[in-house]
Amino acid sequence: MISRILAAGLPRHVGEEVKIAGWVHRRRVLKSVTFLVVRDRSGLAQVVLPGGETVPSEETVVEVQGTVQANPQAPGGAEITGAVVKLLSEPAKAPPFDLYRPQVTATLPTILDNAPVALRHPRLRARFEISAASVAGFRQTLDGLGFTETHTPKIVGSATESGANVFGVDYFGQRAYLAQSPQFFKQALVGVFERVYEVGPVFRAEPHDTARHLAQYTSLDAELGFITDHHDVMAMLRQAVAGMVAMITERVGPTEELTLPGVPGEIPSIHFADAQELLARNTGEDPRGEPDLAPAHERWLSEWAVKEHGSEFLYVTGYPMAKRPFYTHPDPARPAYSNSFDLLFRGLELVTGGQRLHRHADYLAALAGRGESAESYSDYLSVFTHGMPPHGGFALGLERWTARLLGVGNIRETTLFPRDLHRLNP
Amino acid sequence: MISRILAAGLPRHVGEEVKIAGWVHRRRVLKSVTFLVVRDRSGLAQVVLPGGETVPSEETVVEVQGTVQANPQAPGGAEITGAVVKLLSEPAKAPPFDLYRPQVTATLPTILDNAPVALRHPRLRARFEISAASVAGFRQTLDGLGFTETHTPKIVGSATESGANVFGVDYFGQRAYLAQSPQFFKQALVGVFERVYEVGPVFRAEPHDTARHLAQYTSLDAELGFITDHHDVMAMLRQAVAGMVAMITERVGPTEELTLPGVPGEIPSIHFADAQELLARNTGEDPRGEPDLAPAHERWLSEWAVKEHGSEFLYVTGYPMAKRPFYTHPDPARPAYSNSFDLLFRGLELVTGGQRLHRHADYLAALAGRGESAESYSDYLSVFTHGMPPHGGFALGLERWTARLLGVGNIRETTLFPRDLHRLNP
Repeated sequence: MISRILAAGLPRHVGEEVKIAGWVHRRRVLKSVTFLVVRDRSGLAQVVLPGGETVPSEETVVEVQGTVQANPQAPGGAEITGAVVKLLSEPAKAPPFDLYRPQVTATLPTILDNAPVALRHPRLRARFEISAASVAGFRQTLDGLGFTETHTPKIVGSATESGANVFGVDYFGQRAYLAQSPQFFKQALVGVFERVYEVGPVFRAEPHDTARHLAQYTSLDAELGFITDHHDVMAMLRQAVAGMVAMITERVGPTEELTLPGVPGEIPSIHFADAQELLARNTGEDPRGEPDLAPAHERWLSEWAVKEHGSEFLYVTGYPMAKRPFYTHPDPARPAYSNSFDLLFRGLELVTGGQRLHRHADYLAALAGRGESAESYSDYLSVFTHGMPPHGGFALGLERWTARLLGVGNIRETTLFPRDLHRLNP
Repeated sequence: MISRILAAGLPRHVGEEVKIAGWVHRRRVLKSVTFLVVRDRSGLAQVVLPGGETVPSEETVVEVQGTVQANPQAPGGAEITGAVVKLLSEPAKAPPFDLYRPQVTATLPTILDNAPVALRHPRLRARFEISAASVAGFRQTLDGLGFTETHTPKIVGSATESGANVFGVDYFGQRAYLAQSPQFFKQALVGVFERVYEVGPVFRAEPHDTARHLAQYTSLDAELGFITDHHDVMAMLRQAVAGMVAMITERVGPTEELTLPGVPGEIPSIHFADAQELLARNTGEDPRGEPDLAPAHERWLSEWAVKEHGSEFLYVTGYPMAKRPFYTHPDPARPAYSNSFDLLFRGLELVTGGQRLHRHADYLAALAGRGESAESYSDYLSVFTHGMPPHGGFALGLERWTARLLGVGNIRETTLFPRDLHRLNP
């Protein structure tokens, strides 16, 4: 019995008897010959059958044995002739749209409702190979820089980050919540490992139906100790992003849909106040006094960075303390601004990060200043009673990243099985 | 300004001026000299200070600048002399037990209640470096074998796997559940990627307070298509486990607490029925007719495998269909038994896996045979209407794996922040 090879390997076996296995991707029945295109995880293989034979329908799972022959017209330059086709499993139903057409002809709801079969379309499938490569590059980079990977609770006793937009869980009769981020845990673990990361699900009970928010997404979280300020975090994030792009290049390479960005040795950076000045001078609007950037302003700044610095990435630093969470470290020189940053990429905020407070007394003062009680943060605060180094970190949304890379407008297109206000299946 | 080096790097800098940073791990005040042991993510460094100086208490975060001097008595054979110590952050409170003692002197509840500081103990911390290395080895092995990493929903619309032991979530006013496993998704994704894995949280509303169950644990899930039967899955799992052990060896090496197992080229295997015969002949008990193995019998079989095959791993195959989930593939030759397996490791079931049904008609028949309605599985069943290859997979609990490696009795000891019937904090 000969063992299976992959479709992409055919050209290395010209003249040999081989076995492949996969799905019937397409049938082309001509008068004297029938072509069967078989899809497996590596790509497509053309199988030549005599005319007049009944051929299995699309998505039938088949095993094909035959002889590899060179043919410049076949995908990869080789095809299988003299083939014997064995059916492994037959579909009970046709896919909701043709998987063999180069473009995806279905609407987004059709794709999402039929995700298990729709994702078989090579173009849709490729998006998630890019996701997987991104995460592998992220981990490889941070592993090489002394980070430890962690797995932290997704069920938490209190909704620390913000009371709103949190899912409730019935926890053995007790009220619990789905974690909106691993923020508390990753900070605590800086005290243990100095440098930690986690790739995992985070949950937001997002009540709005937007193209860029989901009820669950995959967060790439990192946190590191012994920093001087947020610039050390920004330098680390740059390395992580460069590692992600490098791994995509290695595993997937550029494709028709994918344009990979260059990652500058130093990502250009502009202070929030300077960004507002720039917007006021150039856009005919005056955002000064606003505590955050509007989406249109993020887009303008992104375009400015491309023109001014030749970079698709731009750091905006020093967001006003008023709009940042209580654990944010202020800028010692201008305490109304923070040691925080956003990373803009192709017009959108991709990452939020910054330096955190690390002294127990500073946390008590920050909570008091916001009129919040220290008791409701007792677990969180206890971390800082035991000596914590200056530290900071960031969180990058995986689905948002791949959507930007691929230039798709809706984050649902880069999520295997999205969860939102209206969607809980499949 | 000189930049920081790690404690473990001291011996490479003898005679040089260096800077280290970390936590005061221990003070030893003698008459004429004071030793400060500083802990960072790489290990410990000894700092020599003149006698009579006030020294910071344990867990103070410090930066130390001084000259490296060889000293065979110091950890690593080098220490810092002529040191200037700068305090970065002072503890408000002492740890609940001495972190510098070689053994952990606290009880498990004390450790868990104070996890953020307790985990700083080098022995406790090391357990999670082993976890991280295990997961890295798992991924590296499967990445090399053509698997794609996926991220699937943790909030699901129906409790497919089993109605009991599932956490309810209020999902925008709708009833939803926390996923007990990625079973549905990983099978569906075999249709897309052929080979997939996921490392992520799974949730069980486990109402019993045991040493080996948690409400959330980290599941290493894999699923692969185009198999002949469960033996292909077992061969793949063997490679994954070997990769995990290899990565632990590379990153952590054997330690006092850790005895790494050898992974045989082929893990010995015994059929469930033969295992029962063996137990009946040798244990004075007769388990024949029972649909599962008792914990004591798993321990006996594990010991038998060590004696008989020199292996700490043992596959038990062919569990009765009656005790396996509806998607289990029967043994074609003996349909009361299944094409499934458990992997026993050091007396405990570590992995469950097997071949799944892949034909739509077989699923309908299996559900009907169990008196379950096909409607409540409509999403799941739809996957199999579109042509699915023979496939199978497995799930390995990370915390249980590291507990077995370290020989600790309670799975809470290998979980950073465990969640159980009584514990939702920190």
